[in-house]
This record gives sequence, structure tokens and C-alpha cells, in this order.
Amino acid sequence: MRRLLLTICYDGTEYCGWQMQKNALSVQQKITEVLETVVGKLPNQIVGCSRTDSGVHANKYYCHFNTESDINVKNIVLALNSRLPKDISVINCKETDDTFHARYSAKKKRYIYKFYCSEVRNPFIDKYCYKLNEKPNIDLLNKYCELFLGTHNFKSFCASGSTISSTVREIYSCSFVENNNLIEFTIEGNGFLYNMVRIIVGTILELYKKNKPYEEVTNIINSCDRSKAGKTAPAHALYLDEVFY
Amino acid sequence: MRRLLLTICYDGTEYCGWQMQKNALSVQQKITEVLETVVGKLPNQIVGCSRTDSGVHANKYYCHFNTESDINVKNIVLALNSRLPKDISVINCKETDDTFHARYSAKKKRYIYKFYCSEVRNPFIDKYCYKLNEKPNIDLLNKYCELFLGTHNFKSFCASGSTISSTVREIYSCSFVENNNLIEFTIEGNGFLYNMVRIIVGTILELYKKNKPYEEVTNIINSCDRSKAGKTAPAHALYLDEVFY
Repeated sequence: MRRLLLTICYDGTEYCGWQMQKNALSVQQKITEVLETVVGKLPNQIVGCSRTDSGVHANKYYCHFNTESDINVKNIVLALNSRLPKDISVINCKETDDTFHARYSAKKKRYIYKFYCSEVRNPFIDKYCYKLNEKPNIDLLNKYCELFLGTHNFKSFCASGSTISSTVREIYSCSFVENNNLIEFTIEGNGFLYNMVRIIVGTILELYKKNKPYEEVTNIINSCDRSKAGKTAPAHALYLDEVFY
Repeated sequence: MRRLLLTICYDGTEYCGWQMQKNALSVQQKITEVLETVVGKLPNQIVGCSRTDSGVHANKYYCHFNTESDINVKNIVLALNSRLPKDISVINCKETDDTFHARYSAKKKRYIYKFYCSEVRNPFIDKYCYKLNEKPNIDLLNKYCELFLGTHNFKSFCASGSTISSTVREIYSCSFVENNNLIEFTIEGNGFLYNMVRIIVGTILELYKKNKPYEEVTNIINSCDRSKAGKTAPAHALYLDEVFY
């Protein structure tokens, strides 16, 4: 039995996220359907590096699967890309050992949240970026970001209803960068709770708009109370950008 | 009666082009439906600056209409943008005089055809750019471009079936520019025949791939024979970029 690791890229607009769900099309389901036409019936489910929310995109998403097929990895990539819909592409396929696990072997993840600044909606980027009517002050936004760095209990930044055992995570980096009328918020950490990046983004924007002191971030973290944080920012502007193993 | 000029921007993916058609959704129809909810029934059809093909986009598209309504132009923009689907946005609305005509007053038009160079399909840009597996030599492509400049009979570059009276057009500029793995072909002229930009693009790519001498462009122009030119490049990567009045 071989274990293979796929690196894929997808536009999440039409999907309910990675994870298989009843009554909704997931990326996992689409990949599984197409992969089975290439390597035959899979003995186990494909394992993804993370659950992405409905509508969230991935520049790099990693998933592993076991197979008895001896088809070579290059041909798997070609066959998958010719059969997958246009909103999913396979970047790479490689052999890996049995101990590798797309989810549990991940050491670090990077997410990017994209904004564009414009009074008028831009039909070409509106599906992929969150529109801000006015350009914010990036230096001020980054002051809020600094307070997220390090190891914290991020319970305030986890969607309610989540039943995860620990809500402690470490954030390695977190900042906004502007490029003309485009702004990217990039965050790296050892893991992220359900909706965590989107709640962090929503909170920073809200604190900035209300001109709140930077320390308010620490207060919200310490409260361990979801209701103290800001709204969950929309899914369509979030990208899982990279996973480090 | 007032005459107003709208500047709009649209993602043409879901439309059969600007022009109203039976059994297919056009941008003209969508704009008309929404505009009539704002200014009331229009006495005449909205007049657009050009027919764009099915699937072609517009960064700037101009259209005029007459109305008895006295609603101010800023409110027209706001009302239209809140009611239009996300793939169409209104950039501007201004008063114009009766002699202005969105189509016949146009002095120059600029189209852009976008490419990206990648072995693997990129789900985020594949809808908006034509994929090239290998990066072409831009200097060589531009040698072919030079021979399109000036006034020529472009019959070879007009889709067959067109019943236009004159196929003579003047090209003011025409070139490829690269920016990392993105390439833009920009062409400006006093007017363009049906499918002309897409046939020019398809022809240049074909001549380049086959390593044909540059003068072949002139031979194809002089032949006045559509079958001598290359294939029509796909619609989804073409943008009406600007119209000059």
C-alpha cells in the first residue's frame, strides 16, 4: 500500500468547504470522485490538512490518501487536472511514508485575508476580496496585530458551538501589507480554531473603526468570551495559503 | 428629456455579450431592467458603445439613455449599484447633450487580452486569463504586432458571416507587455470588426508557435481571406478596456 500526498489549489466559492457534508458539495467529495476514476476505489477517506469553511479558498491545500495503484505520480497529476472542474487544480503529487498525516503532521499554517479599497464594487475582484470603502491606516491596523502574537487562549476567537478540547494556539506572525488599493492580512500560527482567522479580522476592523485602544485586543483575549470579539469577516476573502510540515 | 451617459464595468462570464438576445441574458437587458426600476420606463433602448461578444468583459463600457426622470446622477449610481448583480457595477453617470452617441461618438477604443503562464491551471485567474504553458518571447511577439499598425483592410480578421459595409480600420498601437507570469496584449484603434481582436491574438500566437516570418502578418492582411488568419482566441480573456470620445 502506498501513501501519496496531493497539493491542490481551489477556488472555494462553489463548495461547502473541504469536509464532506450531506446535501452540499465539498472539495473532498469532488477530489475523491475524480481520484477514484484514476487510482480505483480508495481503501480509506482522503485526509485533508484542515477543515476550511464554506466559501474559503486555498492557494495550497494538502491531503493524503492510501492506494494499491502503482500509477506514477506525474500521471496522477495529469489525469486529475484533466478531469477536475476548473475551480480545483492539482499542483503536485508525491510519495510519502505511512507516518505522514496531512493534518497531524502540520507544524505551521499560513492564512491570508484579502481586501480591496474602492468606493465602487469591482466585479473582477469582489468575489475574492473584501471591499473597504476607504483605505485604512495600515500602521494603526498593525498595532492591533502585535497583541495577537504569542501563545494565548483564543476562546474569544472561536465560533461558538465548537467542541474542541483546547483553545490555546500560538501565533507566529500577523500583519497587514498594502499594495496600491489591495491589502493583505497574513497570519501564521501552529493551528487555528473554527472561524478564528475571520473573527480576528472582523475584530481588528471593528476596533480600528471605533478607534479603540490597542490593549483592547488583550482584554478580549483574556475575557475568553466570543461575544467580546468582533463579527466574523466574510469567507470569500480568506485563503489557506500554506501548510508547513 | 435628459440624455445620460453611464460608465459601467462588468464580468462578462455569465452574459451573452452587451446586445439583447432572445433566450440568453445580455448586459443590456440586465442594465435596462434595473435602470427602469430607478428612472421609470425608458422611452428608447439604452445605446451601448459596442457589441461585446459572449463572455467578453469590460473594464469601462459606455452607454447612453434618455429619460424624463429628474433624479440626480449620484443617486442613479447608488441605486443601480445596490440593485445590480455583483458582476456588473456602475462607475459613473453624467449628463450629456443630445448630440452625444455612445457608439457613433467614439473616436478610439482600447482592448486588452490577458494571459497567464503556468503549467498548472490557476483556479483564481483561469476564468479571466488565457493560459499559456510556457512563457513566450515578448520581443518576438511584438515584432508581429508592429505589422498590424496603421490603416488596413482587416477582412481576414473579421468573423465570417459579418455584414459590415467597410472592413477598413486603423490600429494606433498594439503590443504585449509582461509582468512576472502575467502577459497583457493591448490594442488601440478607431474601431474593431466582429471578433477582430480575438482573431489577431490567435493569429499572432499561431505565427509565433510555428516560427513564421513577421511579414506573414502582411500577407494575411493582404489576402482578405479569413481562412488565412489564425483561430479566434477564447472570449474569457478579452476586456474592452476604454473608449475615447
